[in-house]
Amino acid sequence: MKLYKANILFTPEPNKLEIIPNGYIAVLNSGLIKGIYKEKPEEYEWREVIDFGDKLLIPAFNDLHVHAPQYRNMGLALDLELLPWLNTYTFPEERKFADYQYAIKIYRRFVHELWMQGTMRSSVFATIHPEATRRLADIFVQAGMGSYIGLVGMNRNSPDFLCNSTKDVIDGTRMLKKYLEERGNDDLVKPIITPRFVPSCSDEMLKALGDLAAETGLPVQSHLSENRSEIDWVKQLEPDSTCYGDAYNRYGLFGQTPTLMAHCCYTDGEELELMKRNGVYVVHCPMSNSNLSSGMAPIRKFLNEGINVALGTDVSAGHNMSMLRVIQYAIQVSKLHYAQTHGEMQFLSLSEAFYLATKAGGSFFGKVGSFEPGYEFDALVVDDSYLNYDNYTLEQRLERYIYLGDDRDIKRRFCRGKELVEPVY
Amino acid sequence: MKLYKANILFTPEPNKLEIIPNGYIAVLNSGLIKGIYKEKPEEYEWREVIDFGDKLLIPAFNDLHVHAPQYRNMGLALDLELLPWLNTYTFPEERKFADYQYAIKIYRRFVHELWMQGTMRSSVFATIHPEATRRLADIFVQAGMGSYIGLVGMNRNSPDFLCNSTKDVIDGTRMLKKYLEERGNDDLVKPIITPRFVPSCSDEMLKALGDLAAETGLPVQSHLSENRSEIDWVKQLEPDSTCYGDAYNRYGLFGQTPTLMAHCCYTDGEELELMKRNGVYVVHCPMSNSNLSSGMAPIRKFLNEGINVALGTDVSAGHNMSMLRVIQYAIQVSKLHYAQTHGEMQFLSLSEAFYLATKAGGSFFGKVGSFEPGYEFDALVVDDSYLNYDNYTLEQRLERYIYLGDDRDIKRRFCRGKELVEPVY
Repeated sequence: MKLYKANILFTPEPNKLEIIPNGYIAVLNSGLIKGIYKEKPEEYEWREVIDFGDKLLIPAFNDLHVHAPQYRNMGLALDLELLPWLNTYTFPEERKFADYQYAIKIYRRFVHELWMQGTMRSSVFATIHPEATRRLADIFVQAGMGSYIGLVGMNRNSPDFLCNSTKDVIDGTRMLKKYLEERGNDDLVKPIITPRFVPSCSDEMLKALGDLAAETGLPVQSHLSENRSEIDWVKQLEPDSTCYGDAYNRYGLFGQTPTLMAHCCYTDGEELELMKRNGVYVVHCPMSNSNLSSGMAPIRKFLNEGINVALGTDVSAGHNMSMLRVIQYAIQVSKLHYAQTHGEMQFLSLSEAFYLATKAGGSFFGKVGSFEPGYEFDALVVDDSYLNYDNYTLEQRLERYIYLGDDRDIKRRFCRGKELVEPVY
Repeated sequence: MKLYKANILFTPEPNKLEIIPNGYIAVLNSGLIKGIYKEKPEEYEWREVIDFGDKLLIPAFNDLHVHAPQYRNMGLALDLELLPWLNTYTFPEERKFADYQYAIKIYRRFVHELWMQGTMRSSVFATIHPEATRRLADIFVQAGMGSYIGLVGMNRNSPDFLCNSTKDVIDGTRMLKKYLEERGNDDLVKPIITPRFVPSCSDEMLKALGDLAAETGLPVQSHLSENRSEIDWVKQLEPDSTCYGDAYNRYGLFGQTPTLMAHCCYTDGEELELMKRNGVYVVHCPMSNSNLSSGMAPIRKFLNEGINVALGTDVSAGHNMSMLRVIQYAIQVSKLHYAQTHGEMQFLSLSEAFYLATKAGGSFFGKVGSFEPGYEFDALVVDDSYLNYDNYTLEQRLERYIYLGDDRDIKRRFCRGKELVEPVY
């Protein structure tokens, strides 16, 4: 067991920021939290305390939608909307991952940056290439960070150089599952079933992936209702589906196992009802939705309806791996939406957005993203002393760290109780 | 004369990014640029070259709207709209500047951060306090950075503790002008006439400030059409004005001397025509407009109409002093506006937004913000080597620096030819 001392801040509920100044947190050897305390508990009187002084201790971040092979293009090529952006910039870059040596080079940088930004859990799109995808999984296992890793399925409306077959993606996903089980990584790194999106997957592929989900219980991730042209295209491609979401649902890829759907900028009506009924997660990617001119997802509406909402960077349509930035954008886009609806849709509070980036996203991985007893200890130690030159409250210090801080401020990182050192290669 | 060598990038026109790989730039002792060259010019064959290697050399940034006394509140208190935000958070903070010792503490940090972020010219709101405002001017002079500094006028609809009289602001502005002329600072630091905004200035005060502008030729800065409630309020307060802008114009505060108007989120029709006719600058503050739920300024429309547009952080309604962030927000908000207008209003290109932050804003200070001959050499040397791990083009390197870089990357800073070292106190 370890006993840590610091200024502890976390959000057990969306609008409840729990603050324990100079508090204690006991972490079992299993990595689970035993308890948090205002004073040193009597039962641990003789225990050594690992004291982080005046620093902040907060839950680590969870990025529920990110494309690892697009890391090289981060901060580039943001002058097109989704569909031409994919064809012009993204597919040619993903093609390079047929070369697993190139993949190792980029994936190491990608995982290093997740570590740097304090993102201890992620759900990641790889490419169609099984060898490169296995390497990505290896790099995550070495780093000790949690991740769902998706071998991408795409067999239509995509360039020849970036298509696989139904058999390829099914066999590849099974092999990745077997490989990770045999390698042993305490289940921190796992596969996730990943049809790219409806336009690039035939009904046959979607059906086979849905069957695989039913058979294995593996979770699912994909894209949904990101942009108007894409939605129109899906309508043409899938005239029998009652909505975009239904094109996943009819094949068992929409909450039959735990499911992440990125974007949902235009989700409403029946699609929204279906997500609610099936417990599908919206992964809100406001940085990406701004960069690709996609639009503003109605997050307040989703929250009012009780839909699960998590946050994602969506690199490289998102231009930055920092979840601090995503929290900022989530609030700001909700405020522009509030202005546009003349105040009808209340914007997100800081506490709500922080909750989305920690506990809400973490829930996809189990008991992750909070400091309640029984939760896995995923945590960051933050030194905000350069920002704290006046008498700021702890709540204000968290706010200023979120709006003004960056990777420099994170001094220590923990995933499931284990301190993670910088990955070097 | 000095001869510098680097990868030179600048925007002489909004959609023209000039790139000179391993180019040379000759800077006269006056601080003006003599010329830029692809090869070392024969006439300077024997000159020593100051070689920045593979680094980028770009124009420094210009922040045309920022509130120095709000620096302590940066990254805080962003949960209200403009008018309650002013009363709840901002006025109580500005009140503290009656104490000039407190002012010195905050203003030193503020100017240090401008330096750190590579913002070599700014147009700044101080407070109603002449002593503190003079100290701010001193700190700028010591740092060697260019700035317009505004003693704020406000005498109605404001708390008693934050009101001055017409005489106070007129006398104070005259004294600041005289002080800076006598102190001698090569005209880099100058006063600017600063009515806070129409709701907080009586007609008498506006008239006196307009008369002062006419007499002295001093420029003017204020706020315009930021938020719907504010616009409605101005309509009530100034029933004789044909639009918000007219309430400035009738008193000679709307382009009769060079004028900056921050925000203009809802400027249209007659107000837009008046700005165009009078050459008034729109200072676009997209970070602030998102944070305070103000709305999205129609920048494409302004540019199409030939209106001057510059950029501002508007700290602390903007939460960050980095003009890189403002460039990002300007592009992103223009993209959300593009999505909202179904593509009617084309979003800003990277080159256009970079131009706004350099040459467009710089034009308010004279020939500033470009590397054309005759321009003042305001420049940043940027080390982006950590971002440049693959074969990126120079244009892509600039793009990635804008989207992913921060203050760490700026290695040297020049204002009017002079290298500025870090201000230490």
